[in-house]
Amino acid sequence: MFMKDHVTKQARRAKEASRQLAWLPVEVRNGALKAMADALEAHQDEIIEINTKEVAAARERGTRKNMIDRLILTPQRIAAMAQGIRQIVELPDPIGKADFVVTRPNGLQIRRQRVPFGVVGIIYEARPNVTADAVALCIKSGNACLLRGGSEAVRTNKKIVDILKEAAAANGIPSTAIEFIGILDRDAVVVMCRLRKLVDVIIPRGGAGLIARVVEHSTVPVIETGTGVCHTFIDKTADFDLAIKVCLNAKTSRPSVCNAMETLLIHRDIAADFLPKISRAMIDAGVELRGDEESRKIFPDMNEATDDDWATEYNDLILTVGIVDDVDAAIDHINRYGSAHSDAIITRDADSATKFKQLVDSADVYVNASTRFTDGFEFGFGAEIGISTQKLHARGPMGLEALTTTKYLIDGDGQIR
Amino acid sequence: MFMKDHVTKQARRAKEASRQLAWLPVEVRNGALKAMADALEAHQDEIIEINTKEVAAARERGTRKNMIDRLILTPQRIAAMAQGIRQIVELPDPIGKADFVVTRPNGLQIRRQRVPFGVVGIIYEARPNVTADAVALCIKSGNACLLRGGSEAVRTNKKIVDILKEAAAANGIPSTAIEFIGILDRDAVVVMCRLRKLVDVIIPRGGAGLIARVVEHSTVPVIETGTGVCHTFIDKTADFDLAIKVCLNAKTSRPSVCNAMETLLIHRDIAADFLPKISRAMIDAGVELRGDEESRKIFPDMNEATDDDWATEYNDLILTVGIVDDVDAAIDHINRYGSAHSDAIITRDADSATKFKQLVDSADVYVNASTRFTDGFEFGFGAEIGISTQKLHARGPMGLEALTTTKYLIDGDGQIR
Repeated sequence: MFMKDHVTKQARRAKEASRQLAWLPVEVRNGALKAMADALEAHQDEIIEINTKEVAAARERGTRKNMIDRLILTPQRIAAMAQGIRQIVELPDPIGKADFVVTRPNGLQIRRQRVPFGVVGIIYEARPNVTADAVALCIKSGNACLLRGGSEAVRTNKKIVDILKEAAAANGIPSTAIEFIGILDRDAVVVMCRLRKLVDVIIPRGGAGLIARVVEHSTVPVIETGTGVCHTFIDKTADFDLAIKVCLNAKTSRPSVCNAMETLLIHRDIAADFLPKISRAMIDAGVELRGDEESRKIFPDMNEATDDDWATEYNDLILTVGIVDDVDAAIDHINRYGSAHSDAIITRDADSATKFKQLVDSADVYVNASTRFTDGFEFGFGAEIGISTQKLHARGPMGLEALTTTKYLIDGDGQIR
Repeated sequence: MFMKDHVTKQARRAKEASRQLAWLPVEVRNGALKAMADALEAHQDEIIEINTKEVAAARERGTRKNMIDRLILTPQRIAAMAQGIRQIVELPDPIGKADFVVTRPNGLQIRRQRVPFGVVGIIYEARPNVTADAVALCIKSGNACLLRGGSEAVRTNKKIVDILKEAAAANGIPSTAIEFIGILDRDAVVVMCRLRKLVDVIIPRGGAGLIARVVEHSTVPVIETGTGVCHTFIDKTADFDLAIKVCLNAKTSRPSVCNAMETLLIHRDIAADFLPKISRAMIDAGVELRGDEESRKIFPDMNEATDDDWATEYNDLILTVGIVDDVDAAIDHINRYGSAHSDAIITRDADSATKFKQLVDSADVYVNASTRFTDGFEFGFGAEIGISTQKLHARGPMGLEALTTTKYLIDGDGQIR
């Protein structure tokens, strides 16, 4: 009960702050962001001191090495956080733009314009750099934020938030526009997801488990992000060298991220020729292969793919390999097992390319390029809140505009209906 | 278990149909819609025969008169349904338009284009005309639909759907693109709301109870529609004649709809003068008044407003009346008790108007006009799926575009990251 009251109070404070924040000029928002970036660098030693203790405690608990690596903050990483905030300052203001303006025959003037959501709830896992990033994106877009980070970094995150709050308050932004839920109770996430009228949208950033939990419990609208079971299909007309180059990049350049390839599908007509080539290249790059029965007949040096493998986001150097009859079978496979994130075809046939683009029901569909490009920066948005895998509101990489909604403003002189 | 399997099967059929439907040329979609309109008129007698029995059964059960009125179909009402479909045929195609096109420095060509959702789930209450309307909007926008209507009209709705399915199938649209859940079990709604990956969005159209139930149980993204606790605030500079005209229209022109006014707020400085005038006009129009303490001191011929009244959508000739200190107090009241639907200020002061438009956190904010204009047709959209009171995806009246999402199509020639 205490926990619920506490989280609710934080949300209410953020809601009140959001009403002030929504109409502050962009100069005020940018000024506060610059001060936040400076403050992070100025207080770098204090952040690192707390972080060092927290990392040591995580090591003692036997936390996995790659998780520890995500937790650690260094002067370079803090400088990168500050730099990220300064880049957000440079972006155009997403607020106030009208995207529909009309004067009706009765004289009513209707204007639909971009406004902030109000309070954005962001639930994330380990990395403390997400804290500064999420705060900066919300403030830039005129939103208050209610943050809930992973327990491993709670003290580091709290320190970062305190520094950001202080810089905000000294620069015309209410400090309560940034609220961090420091209570470790896992149910705080559920409480937060049910604060309708106080929280306007929830964005979970993290693994499949976190996202499923938020979707299950939330009555606040959710923007689902992240899970990527990405495919590359090699059509029978593919340029083999191009295919191998693109697949190696999609699988191995950063296997832990959501836009990395997890499944390779190969057209039956070229499988006997292409499969051994790509398989050797993958094995040389340290990739474990898991194939269907046919693939293993052609290239026996593979493990067996179970039914679960086809729908798994490995986030690791593992690749599932399957042989399909044609582009239609590839599309069916992707729509069945994929996560509607990013999928690619390698082909020299325009008809196959068109069909694939039309019928693969994913946020981002590629022809002859690596799935790794699905990213707000790569798309030229200058920032990224996450990659939406749902169809409502935003789909694919989300820039600042995804943190806004619209409002109709209607001016009349006594019109009645 | 049977029910769950059955609903799931229907959704799966709709999903499969949606993949075919999504890329059919607009001529095919429009041709099928015209045939649907004709078929409704051609089969009018059969529809009315079934409807007559269903209405008689509802009367026997003691169904309320205004509910009975909504159930009844006549040749005129069927002609209006057909006409509604023909109007949708005339609207521009919402599919295929690109709203973001860029070639990146690395040569990647990125195009974001409007595509259908896939399967739209619509849950609605009594009126059978919603069936034809919902089907036509979905087919026009390239979506399959999964419909769940109220139990009182289940046989009438089923008949309408059968006629529409037949016309669709004869004109190049899979009949399974239109699926109607005829099972009366209330839990079918819950099952439907949890079919992630099969249903892409759920739109509840109906009363507050239905909407709350859908929001509570749905794991499929929801577009919340409808509930309207709409306010009109009379500022101290208001033109009294204009204010009375607009308020009478907002309250009495159609009290049962969501954009009707429910609460009148009056600036303290003019209350003694204005309140008696508007109160007499409302009483003359048959409106029951419920006032706060101060209002009743000025105009005693009013009932007492309880705390619940301020947040109630009456859908009836009842009006809550309150006195507030100034525009700020009016804004606070509206943001606290309103449903973020439509709210108006009557004023001759530009600063008050601007402040009201900026700070009232509602989908539609009016200056000197009746809240009754919140409507897709009045806004010039030519159609309306509903009025969204949430901030995600669509806000305010929703036209055809609200039934679409976007997709990124990326063409490369071997780009890697």
